[in-house]
Amino acid sequence: MSYYQDIKEAAYEANMQLPKLGLVLFTFGNVSVADQEKHVFAIKPSGVPYEDLTVDKMVVLDFENNILEGSLRPSSDTKTHALLYKQWESIGSIVHTHSTYATAWAQAQRPIPIFGTTHADHLTTDVPCAPPMADDQIEGDYEHETGWQIIRHFELLGINYHEVEMVLVGNHAPFTWGKNAQKAVYNAAVLEEVARMAMFTEQINPAAPRLKDTLIKKHFERKHGAGAYYGQ
Amino acid sequence: MSYYQDIKEAAYEANMQLPKLGLVLFTFGNVSVADQEKHVFAIKPSGVPYEDLTVDKMVVLDFENNILEGSLRPSSDTKTHALLYKQWESIGSIVHTHSTYATAWAQAQRPIPIFGTTHADHLTTDVPCAPPMADDQIEGDYEHETGWQIIRHFELLGINYHEVEMVLVGNHAPFTWGKNAQKAVYNAAVLEEVARMAMFTEQINPAAPRLKDTLIKKHFERKHGAGAYYGQ
Amino acid sequence: MSYYQDIKEAAYEANMQLPKLGLVLFTFGNVSVADQEKHVFAIKPSGVPYEDLTVDKMVVLDFENNILEGSLRPSSDTKTHALLYKQWESIGSIVHTHSTYATAWAQAQRPIPIFGTTHADHLTTDVPCAPPMADDQIEGDYEHETGWQIIRHFELLGINYHEVEMVLVGNHAPFTWGKNAQKAVYNAAVLEEVARMAMFTEQINPAAPRLKDTLIKKHFERKHGAGAYYGQ
Amino acid sequence: MSYYQDIKEAAYEANMQLPKLGLVLFTFGNVSVADQEKHVFAIKPSGVPYEDLTVDKMVVLDFENNILEGSLRPSSDTKTHALLYKQWESIGSIVHTHSTYATAWAQAQRPIPIFGTTHADHLTTDVPCAPPMADDQIEGDYEHETGWQIIRHFELLGINYHEVEMVLVGNHAPFTWGKNAQKAVYNAAVLEEVARMAMFTEQINPAAPRLKDTLIKKHFERKHGAGAYYGQ
Repeated sequence: MSYYQDIKEAAYEANMQLPKLGLVLFTFGNVSVADQEKHVFAIKPSGVPYEDLTVDKMVVLDFENNILEGSLRPSSDTKTHALLYKQWESIGSIVHTHSTYATAWAQAQRPIPIFGTTHADHLTTDVPCAPPMADDQIEGDYEHETGWQIIRHFELLGINYHEVEMVLVGNHAPFTWGKNAQKAVYNAAVLEEVARMAMFTEQINPAAPRLKDTLIKKHFERKHGAGAYYGQ
Repeated sequence: MSYYQDIKEAAYEANMQLPKLGLVLFTFGNVSVADQEKHVFAIKPSGVPYEDLTVDKMVVLDFENNILEGSLRPSSDTKTHALLYKQWESIGSIVHTHSTYATAWAQAQRPIPIFGTTHADHLTTDVPCAPPMADDQIEGDYEHETGWQIIRHFELLGINYHEVEMVLVGNHAPFTWGKNAQKAVYNAAVLEEVARMAMFTEQINPAAPRLKDTLIKKHFERKHGAGAYYGQ
Repeated sequence: MSYYQDIKEAAYEANMQLPKLGLVLFTFGNVSVADQEKHVFAIKPSGVPYEDLTVDKMVVLDFENNILEGSLRPSSDTKTHALLYKQWESIGSIVHTHSTYATAWAQAQRPIPIFGTTHADHLTTDVPCAPPMADDQIEGDYEHETGWQIIRHFELLGINYHEVEMVLVGNHAPFTWGKNAQKAVYNAAVLEEVARMAMFTEQINPAAPRLKDTLIKKHFERKHGAGAYYGQ
Repeated sequence: MSYYQDIKEAAYEANMQLPKLGLVLFTFGNVSVADQEKHVFAIKPSGVPYEDLTVDKMVVLDFENNILEGSLRPSSDTKTHALLYKQWESIGSIVHTHSTYATAWAQAQRPIPIFGTTHADHLTTDVPCAPPMADDQIEGDYEHETGWQIIRHFELLGINYHEVEMVLVGNHAPFTWGKNAQKAVYNAAVLEEVARMAMFTEQINPAAPRLKDTLIKKHFERKHGAGAYYGQ
C-alpha cells in the first residue's frame, strides 16, 4: 500500500473517465491529482493506453518534478501540471485533453465567447486562450513554460484560477482544473460542450452577441454566489 | 406510497429518458409532470446526477412554488415550470434541456425557420425564440420571469401553446411541453433534430426558402387535422 | 402463416435495420418490400415505434393501395411506395427516411454534387433532388403525387431507376430503392454518408470541383460494369 | 496452418479494428499486412462484410499481384497496396478507408494544414493531398497508377514515407501506413481526428495560421527525436 495511495487511486479513476466522456482518442489526454499538503501529485504514465492503466502504474512526483514513486515515465505534460500546482495552491486536480471542439478553438487561437447560460453557469468570462509561446520558450523547458504561459495570461486578463477553471493554449489544446478530480474532469467535459455550442452559435448567426452582463452575473450567482440555489 | 405517486413516477421515468436520448450532459436538464386537477407538479431535484435519481427523490410543489413533498431542493428552473402550468392549463409535462443544437439557435437568438416536412409534421410555424430578458426581469424573480417571457412572446406572435409545444429562450436554451411526459420528451428530441437539420440546411444553401404554405398545412393536417391519417 | 409471409418478414427485418444504422429518430422512416409477381407489397404500419414492431403488424397492400392483410393503418407514405412499384417494375424494396444530412440537402433543395469516388461507386450522377410539388399536387392526392414528382423528375433528367437508386424530394426527405430490401436499406445508409461528406467538402472548399468524367466512369464500372471487379 | 498465418492473422485483426474505430461504413475500407522478407502481403477480400470476415478469408499475394493463397477475390484496391509495398520497402502495413472527414478533405482537393500540436505530434508537414489522376492513368491500370500517384506526389513535395505516414488521394480518400498493422490503423484514426479538427479550426477562424515552425519541431521531436520523452 503506497503512502500516496489516495491520490493514485483518484488519478486512476479520473483518467478512466476521459474515454468514457468521449474526451480522448487513444492516449491524447491525462489527469493528475495533487496532495497540496504533501506537495505531491499522481499522474498518468506517458503513452499508456487507457485499457492498460492500473492504479499501480500512476507516477507520483513532487512539484519540482522529482519522481517519488512509479516505474514508468510520467506524462510528457507533467511539468505543466507541476508548475500549476506549485503556483496555484488550492488546485487539487488538473486535466489535459485534446478534445475535438475545444482544441479547434485553441488551434483557431480564439477565446470562446460567452454566448449563453450554459457557459455562464460555469464561468463569467470568455474561455481564455493563451497565445502560442515565444520561440525561446518552446526551445527551452517547453512544458514548464506552458505552465507559465497559462499563469501569465491569467494575470494579463486579471482573472483568477478559482473563478475560471479552464484555459485554451493557442495552437495546442485545453487544460482544466478544480478542487478535486471530479470537478476537473467535469470542467473538461463542460468546456468541450461549451466549445461545440459556441461554434454552432456563430455558424447560425455570425453576429451573435455575447451574453449581457446582468445575465452572466445572475447565472453565475445562481450556482456560485452567496445565495446560490443550484444543487443540494 | 405518496399521494402524488403517479406524477412522481412519471417525472422520474421521463427524466431518465433525457440522457438516453442524448439531450443532456451531466445534469443540464429537467422534466416535470403536473396533475392539473390537484394543481401540483413533480420535478427533478436540483443538480442530482441521473444515475442517482429515484422516484422518491422527486420534489412535489404546487403552482405557487410551495414544496409539498420531498426533502431535496427542486430544480433551479422550478418557478418557470410552475408559472407555465398555472397559465397554460392543459399542459401535463414540461421539459427543459440544454441540448446542443437547439441551444445554439437560442444563443444565436434566432427562431428556427420551417424548412421541411420533418418540422411541419410537428408545428406550422418557425420555432419561436423569445428575446433575452430585460435587466429588471433578470435581477428580479428570474426563473418566474422566464415563464412570463415565454408566455408574452407567444402572445406577441399570436400563437398558442396547443399548436406550438416548444420555444427557445434567447441566450438560454429550449423548453418543450405536452399533454403528458411522453409527448413533452418526444418534443424535446424532435426539436433537437429539427434544430440540427435547419443549421445544416442553411450551411448547404444560405438562401434556402421556408416551406411553402400549402405544404406546411398539408403535413400538419396529415398528423393533426380532422382527417388525420398518420399513426393508429 | 400468411400467404405474404416472405415479404412481411423481409419488410420487418429491413425496418428494424433503420434505427440500427442511425437513419431514423422515433418513427421517421419506413421500408416496404414488394412481390412484383403478385403485385403486392408489405409496409410498416404508421406511427408504430420500432421496438413494438412485429412481422404480424406489417400491412400488405396491392399497387392500387387496397389493404390485403393487416389490421393497422399503413405508413402515411404508402401511396408513394405503391406508385413507384407500379411504374418501376423491377424495384423490390423502397426505403423512406428523414436521415439528417440527406434531409438537409432536400430542405436546401439542391442535388448532391458528385465529389468523389465514394459517391461514384454507387451512382454516376449527382443525387437528384425533385423540386417541391405544385399547390394542386399538394392539395390533391399528396403521397400519390409525390411518387409522380419523383418519376417525372427522373424523366426530365433522363436518368433511370436502375442506375440511380436514390432521390431527394425537395423540402421533404430522401427515398431509396433496390432490387431487394438489403440493397434499398444499404442505399439509404450510403446516401446519408454521401450527403454528409458532400456538405463537409463544400465547407472545406466552396469551389470544390465535381468529379471528372473519366473517374466517374471508372469507379462505376469497377462495381457495376461488364468487367466489374469489386465484390465476390 | 498457412505458411502466411502470421500476416493473415494480423490483417484480420487490423481489418476488424476499422469498424470499431468508426472509420468505415459497410465495406468501405481495407487493411493489408506485408511480410517484406517474403515479398508478400495479406489483404481483405473484396466486398465482404466485416462481420463475415475470418482469418482464412484473407487473400495473400506477392508484390506483382499474383494470388498465392485464398479463394476469394482480393480488395479492389490491392494493386495500390502492392505497389506501395514494392516501392517503399520498410512499410509493414497499409490502411485504406473512406473515413468521413479525411475523405471530405480529399474531395475538396486540399492538403490538411498543420494547425496544432495534435497534428505535429504525428507529422511535421501538412497532410499531403495527391491531385486527381490524369485520364490516361484512370483509363489504364487505375489502382496501380493510384500507387504511383502517391509516390510521385511524395517525390514532388520532397517528403518521405518514414516521416509522413498518410496521404489523401484527391477526389478519392485517404491511405495510411506504418511499420506494422497497429501503427497503420492508429494513423488512420489520427488522420480522421486531425481532419475533423482542421475543418472546425477554419470554421472558427478562416484566417487561422499554420503552426509556427519551432512548435512543429518541438512536438515532433518530443515523440520522434533523439531525445524523445513521449511514451515508455
